[in-house]
Amino acid sequence: MRNDPAPAVLCLSAPEVARLVRRRGLDAVISGIAARIEADLARWPAFDKHARVATHSADGVIELMPISDATHYAFKYVNGHPKNPRVGLPTVMAFGVLVEVATGAPRLLAEMTLTTAIRTAAMSALAAQRLARPGSQRLALIGNGAQAEFQAIALRALTGVRELRLYDLDAAVTAKLVRNLAGAGFELQRCASVADAVRGADIVTTLTANRARAAIVTPEMVEPGMHLNAVGGDCPGKTELHPQVLAGASVFVEYEPQTRVEGELQQLPAEFPVTEFWRVVAGEHPGRRSPAEVTVFDSVGFALEDFSALCWLHDAARADGVGQPIELIPAIADPRDLYALLRDEAAPG
Amino acid sequence: MRNDPAPAVLCLSAPEVARLVRRRGLDAVISGIAARIEADLARWPAFDKHARVATHSADGVIELMPISDATHYAFKYVNGHPKNPRVGLPTVMAFGVLVEVATGAPRLLAEMTLTTAIRTAAMSALAAQRLARPGSQRLALIGNGAQAEFQAIALRALTGVRELRLYDLDAAVTAKLVRNLAGAGFELQRCASVADAVRGADIVTTLTANRARAAIVTPEMVEPGMHLNAVGGDCPGKTELHPQVLAGASVFVEYEPQTRVEGELQQLPAEFPVTEFWRVVAGEHPGRRSPAEVTVFDSVGFALEDFSALCWLHDAARADGVGQPIELIPAIADPRDLYALLRDEAAPG
Repeated sequence: MRNDPAPAVLCLSAPEVARLVRRRGLDAVISGIAARIEADLARWPAFDKHARVATHSADGVIELMPISDATHYAFKYVNGHPKNPRVGLPTVMAFGVLVEVATGAPRLLAEMTLTTAIRTAAMSALAAQRLARPGSQRLALIGNGAQAEFQAIALRALTGVRELRLYDLDAAVTAKLVRNLAGAGFELQRCASVADAVRGADIVTTLTANRARAAIVTPEMVEPGMHLNAVGGDCPGKTELHPQVLAGASVFVEYEPQTRVEGELQQLPAEFPVTEFWRVVAGEHPGRRSPAEVTVFDSVGFALEDFSALCWLHDAARADGVGQPIELIPAIADPRDLYALLRDEAAPG
Repeated sequence: MRNDPAPAVLCLSAPEVARLVRRRGLDAVISGIAARIEADLARWPAFDKHARVATHSADGVIELMPISDATHYAFKYVNGHPKNPRVGLPTVMAFGVLVEVATGAPRLLAEMTLTTAIRTAAMSALAAQRLARPGSQRLALIGNGAQAEFQAIALRALTGVRELRLYDLDAAVTAKLVRNLAGAGFELQRCASVADAVRGADIVTTLTANRARAAIVTPEMVEPGMHLNAVGGDCPGKTELHPQVLAGASVFVEYEPQTRVEGELQQLPAEFPVTEFWRVVAGEHPGRRSPAEVTVFDSVGFALEDFSALCWLHDAARADGVGQPIELIPAIADPRDLYALLRDEAAPG
């Protein structure tokens, strides 16, 4: 029997992940995670997929999102509590764990509040890369909160957009976005309304946080050839697009059973046809079929994206020597002698 | 808006929990956790209960076990990989997280490999306290592995047993148990067979690890008035009691929907009557009804026990000043400005 295999878990705190991203550059990190997501989407049938496990309360929702392939298991913890900003907490907080399937040993525990913003943007950009018209330049960002900078940088990295048309109900939030992206090489335009922002855009990303059946984008705003990323509507009772916008578009989703319940799709009948986006990546579906087609990526966030992000983070953290080992699992010489942990001589302290 | 509420998560590593248990004494910790489980069982309807989410692979199973009441949410990660001892890893490894329901903020991350052994023993002892005959002295321990010492100490703490009758297929494992409990005040008897160990026992605890349909305890071994804790049979395809032992007993379970699938109960028809143990604690069921009745606690481990253990650990760790804060969640001044984490001036390093 081997002695003390020291199954330490590498712990990546939020400051450590932020430092890693600053050092490598957000563009490079988004591109790295997007490449990993794309590779994992291409082998979609290899994953054991679960619907997320949600616990609802008066103030919000708490979810566990597990997924696995033959070698790794991952899960993310994530909440959604719209009133949190009033007490100075993020609306969404998350962390994730990466596990070795052969032994069940956890290997990585990582912050995922920042990482979720990065992987969500990477996923939106992957979708736009395949579904928006080639040469798309102009991006409308409807909702300029926590996720907006990440979307702008991801879409530039993968599709080359340079012009941002910005709208938020709260002008102070748009001002925050403008400050954060000043000097980053974008052409920034504050718009007076959603319609003003959407007019002439190649890609429209909706990132609103309101937990309601909203119709932020209405049919008369939609122009032929537009691609829409609907990112903010992501749980039952929360939508952003008017149902007629969906009805007139080719709709792509992450994991159909989840999106039917959580996505914009909850507004349409169960037989409304959609395409799981992995089919486009795997070459089973062409994606956009004509310059005039309107495409929608009805994004709710799926566990595979977290799996890919955690795998990328694990590799990056080990390469950069970032993170601290924590003894979350006891190192015991004889697994049948757990009691040894309590013998004084076994572990003085 | 408040500034940086520093939502640090208290992290309790395996060595830290082991140290806390050594300092307080295993008897006291078991009694404390048992009292917490008992109090939580008494308010069973207050909990939002889920079946556990299991992912099966060739080598084992990985599970997430969430549960919540109005103020706290908890989940446990736990695996079961029978071949792990060959590579020096425990068969079962676990950790858990305790979360504030009102905000979704995680407050405690704790090892639960050791803690699961403690809470399982506490639960078995609670059941025996209510279901075994008063004055029970003699405990048969069938299977003397990782969980055995904890069972012995828990049953002594809550029911007063003093005499242990020990049997394991592997004599070296029994020798380990005898070494660990030498000088602890028990009368220890190594037995030549299961039948020898069970003969004359007041309480029988089965703790075998074999993942198979086994019949370790058969009907002719069972004497009137015995109480059996079936602890080892805890997943589909894994049992320890002959079905006729169950058929001739009053059977108590933790959470019926889970035990029907995972427990000894999987051998019996769906209509076989059982009693959820919380009803005994809540005063809705008398428990043992006569000195000659045979009672079985068909234990598979339920999320409520982990919830209670995590709450107890959180209180104990704060009282003792144990554990390290980790910044698993970013501290950000403005929750809508997550990008601030990536501005160089915001967090040098």
